[in-house]
Amino acid sequence: MTSADQVPFDDRGLAYGDGVFETVLLRDGVPLLWPYHRARLLRGCRVLGLEPPDDAALAATWQAPASGLEVLKIILTRGSGGRGYALPESPAPRLLSRRTPFAPAASRWQGVDVCLCTLRLARQPALAGIKHLNRLENVLARQEWQRADIAEGLLADSDGNLVEATAMNVFWLADGVFRTPPLDACGVAGTLRAALLEQGVVGEAPLSVETLLDSELIEQLFVGNSVQGVWPVNTLTTPDGEPLRRFSPTSASPLQAAAHRLLGYVPLSGPSLSGEKR
Amino acid sequence: MTSADQVPFDDRGLAYGDGVFETVLLRDGVPLLWPYHRARLLRGCRVLGLEPPDDAALAATWQAPASGLEVLKIILTRGSGGRGYALPESPAPRLLSRRTPFAPAASRWQGVDVCLCTLRLARQPALAGIKHLNRLENVLARQEWQRADIAEGLLADSDGNLVEATAMNVFWLADGVFRTPPLDACGVAGTLRAALLEQGVVGEAPLSVETLLDSELIEQLFVGNSVQGVWPVNTLTTPDGEPLRRFSPTSASPLQAAAHRLLGYVPLSGPSLSGEKR
Repeated sequence: MTSADQVPFDDRGLAYGDGVFETVLLRDGVPLLWPYHRARLLRGCRVLGLEPPDDAALAATWQAPASGLEVLKIILTRGSGGRGYALPESPAPRLLSRRTPFAPAASRWQGVDVCLCTLRLARQPALAGIKHLNRLENVLARQEWQRADIAEGLLADSDGNLVEATAMNVFWLADGVFRTPPLDACGVAGTLRAALLEQGVVGEAPLSVETLLDSELIEQLFVGNSVQGVWPVNTLTTPDGEPLRRFSPTSASPLQAAAHRLLGYVPLSGPSLSGEKR
Repeated sequence: MTSADQVPFDDRGLAYGDGVFETVLLRDGVPLLWPYHRARLLRGCRVLGLEPPDDAALAATWQAPASGLEVLKIILTRGSGGRGYALPESPAPRLLSRRTPFAPAASRWQGVDVCLCTLRLARQPALAGIKHLNRLENVLARQEWQRADIAEGLLADSDGNLVEATAMNVFWLADGVFRTPPLDACGVAGTLRAALLEQGVVGEAPLSVETLLDSELIEQLFVGNSVQGVWPVNTLTTPDGEPLRRFSPTSASPLQAAAHRLLGYVPLSGPSLSGEKR
């Protein structure tokens, strides 16, 4: 295991996206949801057949003292070497990290508009759920909209199932229960999503795009991740901003409250905060 | 456009596989099949919305004099920046290259065994054909076999269609005609394959794994690329080396002769060369 802040030409993370990453919220130097980030990183190593870093090496990425909010990004690549796609005989994975001061887009906690991307995610069960470095689908999807009033883009798979947003997981309320799609064919299993599942706040259920667009049973929609928290969705649009569907107002949702407790964000107390930037 | 021999932490090629690459055979400093490599690189740029390098920058990667065979690897990334998956406002793509002395595995021109990988390629038309940096499927597939007597691994897609080998395209002879699978849902459209298609030596046709394994109509099988040339397949095996099917002996195939003329490799003249290492 070597640490670096750049990689050489023959690094397999650069050459093939052969590695995984994590994006972790730090508050006063302490990582939030760390057990979930660690578990996903190790799961990624298992899936890719990559030697996992030890806990001391991981902790060294965040143990310098700090105050306030930061985002820690960790990249783990398989390191250099190998003949083409074949693995190196003695792999020396490369661990890179960077900390950046951070402020969440708190106004979005009141509600956002999101679009439905036209790109469909390919179904690849062998890579589903892990946060690997092959993210061209996300990059392509993010190019579908330029409007600043669209906060995220929803992604469905090639079978028409809702999967995630480009950098967030997706949740909805139906029949009084919060749901999120299973991620056994594609998508990144977010750490906030994992914690909310473990707490029983949400459960997994499939949802087709057709049902999302048409069914009155889907009362509320949310996108969220472990850095930004949870954004309720007001309007689902096309990438050009044409409305497809509106959802019920959702400030002070129990889903958002549970998520923001996990992240240490002050819970919103209701509509009186509407429009306030915090 | 900047040139470099390493990339920083925030390079999008490293972070997301946001870029493309080429692997070019150089003979005495002259690139073989260069118009096809250039065309694929530019097509990759169009697909990804990436500013293409100009011809002078590309030519600078190979114009230093040399003798003998080399492999030139070119990597083009979108460069640094952007907020998450969103593109940087002023992208500065990064062009990297490396030349390495090379000798083809000439004994494999006489025939090889290849295995059928169990991993199925995901179908993603938005990325099909281009040589992008998201190659984890190839890395996973290459881990399926360790035996030195297996030269390559064939890959089918999730619908059961034969697509390619991990680092080569695939060809077969049926009814006196050479065929190769269409690559509109996944796979890398190799430059040797493109040249053979343009010359009319091969044509596109779908082939299911089922037919490949069972049909006597499939007389001969080949794998090939623009660096190694064409390898006839003797036996198709499982990743553990269990035979699945044998093919007819194929030394001095017109397919191989046409391919090796394109690459400047001396054509084989028949069975008398069998076993010779060259």
